Amino acid sequence: MTKSVFYHAGCPVCVSAEEDIISLIGEENVERIHLGEDRSKIEAAERAGVQSVPALVTPNGNVLHINFGASLEDVKK
Amino acid sequence: MTKSVFYHAGCPVCVSAEEDIISLIGEENVERIHLGEDRSKIEAAERAGVQSVPALVTPNGNVLHINFGASLEDVKK
Repeated sequence: MTKSVFYHAGCPVCVSAEEDIISLIGEENVERIHLGEDRSKIEAAERAGVQSVPALVTPNGNVLHINFGASLEDVKK
Repeated sequence: MTKSVFYHAGCPVCVSAEEDIISLIGEENVERIHLGEDRSKIEAAERAGVQSVPALVTPNGNVLHINFGASLEDVKK
């Protein structure tokens, strides 16, 4: 199975959601990308449809925005 | 493992999120509750911390609000 991609920005809401997602679907099934530390990935996240973090992009390309940590506009600042 | 509980109200956003969640964590690990059809469960959902649907309550009691279909206030109408 292709991995899901979990986009986050290190915010407390993100960390909490990340722990829940890892626990639910398994660490080996999730690639984690910290957009605050790896800003070159912000564009790819936007293209995938990510509007806020934390968000999970599923293997079939759907975006699940989980709770709300920060908008991508805020991450860009 | 205790099951997660997926609360929804049959809205298109809910159905799409439900399919993604089922595909990610497995049908056997999720109890699905349709708050529009089973209104007696609305109070329990609120007590669990659900503010909008679709939402997933994890086995450890955390609430993941996924995308946004409808607020619980709207579901009560």
